[in-house]
Amino acid sequence: MNPLYARMGTTIFEAMSARARETGAINLGQGFADGRGPEAVLQAAAKAMLEKSNQYPPMIGLPELRGAVAEHYARHQGLNLAAEEVVVTSGATEALAAAIFACVSPGDEVICFQPLYDAYVPLIRQAGGVPKFVRLSPPEWKIDRAALEAAVSSKTRVLLLNNPLNPAATMCGADELAMLADFCVSHDLTAICDEVWEHVTFDGARHLPLIGFPGMRERTVKIGSAGKIFALTGFKVGWICAAPALARVISKAHQFLTFTTPPNLQWAVAEGLATQDGWVQEARHRFQHGRDRLRAGLEGAGFAVLPSAATYFLSVDLTASGISLDDVSFANKLIDEAGVASIPVSAFYAEDAVTNVLRFCFVKEDATLDAAIARIAEAR
Amino acid sequence: MNPLYARMGTTIFEAMSARARETGAINLGQGFADGRGPEAVLQAAAKAMLEKSNQYPPMIGLPELRGAVAEHYARHQGLNLAAEEVVVTSGATEALAAAIFACVSPGDEVICFQPLYDAYVPLIRQAGGVPKFVRLSPPEWKIDRAALEAAVSSKTRVLLLNNPLNPAATMCGADELAMLADFCVSHDLTAICDEVWEHVTFDGARHLPLIGFPGMRERTVKIGSAGKIFALTGFKVGWICAAPALARVISKAHQFLTFTTPPNLQWAVAEGLATQDGWVQEARHRFQHGRDRLRAGLEGAGFAVLPSAATYFLSVDLTASGISLDDVSFANKLIDEAGVASIPVSAFYAEDAVTNVLRFCFVKEDATLDAAIARIAEAR
Ligand SMILES: CSCCC(=O)C(=O)O
Ligand SMILES: CSCCC(=O)C(=O)O
Repeated sequence: MNPLYARMGTTIFEAMSARARETGAINLGQGFADGRGPEAVLQAAAKAMLEKSNQYPPMIGLPELRGAVAEHYARHQGLNLAAEEVVVTSGATEALAAAIFACVSPGDEVICFQPLYDAYVPLIRQAGGVPKFVRLSPPEWKIDRAALEAAVSSKTRVLLLNNPLNPAATMCGADELAMLADFCVSHDLTAICDEVWEHVTFDGARHLPLIGFPGMRERTVKIGSAGKIFALTGFKVGWICAAPALARVISKAHQFLTFTTPPNLQWAVAEGLATQDGWVQEARHRFQHGRDRLRAGLEGAGFAVLPSAATYFLSVDLTASGISLDDVSFANKLIDEAGVASIPVSAFYAEDAVTNVLRFCFVKEDATLDAAIARIAEAR
Repeated sequence: MNPLYARMGTTIFEAMSARARETGAINLGQGFADGRGPEAVLQAAAKAMLEKSNQYPPMIGLPELRGAVAEHYARHQGLNLAAEEVVVTSGATEALAAAIFACVSPGDEVICFQPLYDAYVPLIRQAGGVPKFVRLSPPEWKIDRAALEAAVSSKTRVLLLNNPLNPAATMCGADELAMLADFCVSHDLTAICDEVWEHVTFDGARHLPLIGFPGMRERTVKIGSAGKIFALTGFKVGWICAAPALARVISKAHQFLTFTTPPNLQWAVAEGLATQDGWVQEARHRFQHGRDRLRAGLEGAGFAVLPSAATYFLSVDLTASGISLDDVSFANKLIDEAGVASIPVSAFYAEDAVTNVLRFCFVKEDATLDAAIARIAEAR
């Protein structure tokens, strides 16, 4: 067996959800929202299942969805993408895999930030690439140009960025993005931007896509996710957007990973992108309300809560909260003794982990959040 | 960019379907059936979309579907699989990718047969593996032990078998499978068996799974596809079945390729596997009728038609039909002049291709087949 996978554990998200399912714990671990998502999207999916073809759609996606993605980004982010620059994938995880396999050859170096989503490193290694880490740490999680320059070499081909950043819940500002763009241009790097949290932003701040910055249009792969936009994580419809020369090669990797994505879900997402801006806006407020409620509750229980500008998550600094257990131990204590699942942020580091930060998902009903807060308060 | 993908063409199936879509040609190229699939499966998918969770299901699949797959194989193939030995994937292509990535490490050799499905070689190469080909040729496409022994080395780890074999439309008999099992055991190989055509078999013959042969239970990865079982190729629900030690490692590769598969489609497939044996049996007769109709029509037009024991396909031997063009040229002539898409079988060879065989898909309405036959007869 391939030692890369033979030695690998189950992803922390799944492991925690499985423990929550088994024990009946309140699941504030894996990121998924309470609620049904937009009704119009569910209805469109059910209708397409019964009324449209359920045979292979085009390998790169339905033209209607590719067009809807391009229009969506024109409207929301001022981007000028052609439908031909969109490749539909079976979720953002597959988009990441296809983009990394297409852009990384054996021996290539990839700059990525820690904390990072746990799929990144195995995918880079499966591609034969070498991850080079830039370590970010709380409470600021600030990206520093000097650290980037220290990580880059003549072998670096790709910068892999998650923005907004899970689990830090930070979002890059214009200055930071301009710096990253300048860095990519000066070292001739391709940027793979996992922007699945682009619409889950708070306090009126809006996500800026790196592809819109000077010099980045031809060298950026932008990854999006319908599951995150519509809070339907089981949909597994994602996409990459990239200039034709990049999109073409990525589509070749995609064609032998999943080949294509269920057409009824593609129709539903096209419908949702065209009609559900209001739902997305309303969800943003609802999620912000959940964030504020969980923050207040945890602060009331004596926790030091880190800021959350975006994503489904906020984190607590255990040390600053006067808790001496590390994140894994405290997560275990919470699930075993309090019946609340969370995610230790050390799981987002491949080396030299931050071990005193614990992540909670707040996109839940008030009653669920309140019950979790009460249990956590009692356990600490 | 990774030269593996940068130099790669679009898969022949997609390329031919795209040309058919553009020109309005009758599409007997890519394998998908006319008709809606089992109504109960469509209804179950639509109902689950509206009534069940559309958030992340378990990473390895819904327990209900894993159990239904195990029961399906107990009933149809006498296998004794536990639900825990089933991992649900986003189609059989993803199952192949996950199985190959899990079982092949850089430098490992993989024995595969030509003709082969065009995903196999890129996936082996992406894993850093080295394909070693055993070439089969018409009209018998017979597997020869001496050729296997010549291909094996101390570096060989995996035998990759497609049975029934697309595009040859052959199915291994018990003797051949016993020989393959003995070969795998004596060289300590893992068998990855792409058995997506297991139910599309004709003339009363039934598929035998390699995993059921002596010594194979612990060393076989069996891949199946709901899209093929229910003639719903857009469903993109597949699975691997394997002993726990294998399944566990494959699930680790799966978790970073797509992570999981839409739950409503999983519910629908579970329902279909439990209730639609009758539909599958009826479809088998319908497909056999299509095979016989296309064969008769093409023979009537003077083509030498090769036998088809299984799959959606039959092929003609161009040389024996008195046609001197090679398969690609004749396929181009058919789509350009006659408005019929087909697949040149040379596309299924990585080297030393058979170039005088053309594949047609026959799982179409009578009227479609008749129209195609008339056009092909006129063009030749
Ligand atoms: C694929 S499960 C992980 C979901 C998620 O984005 C998270 O919880 O961070
Ligand atoms: C993934 S498209 C190929 C479908 C198929 O199995 C075939 O036409 O051979």
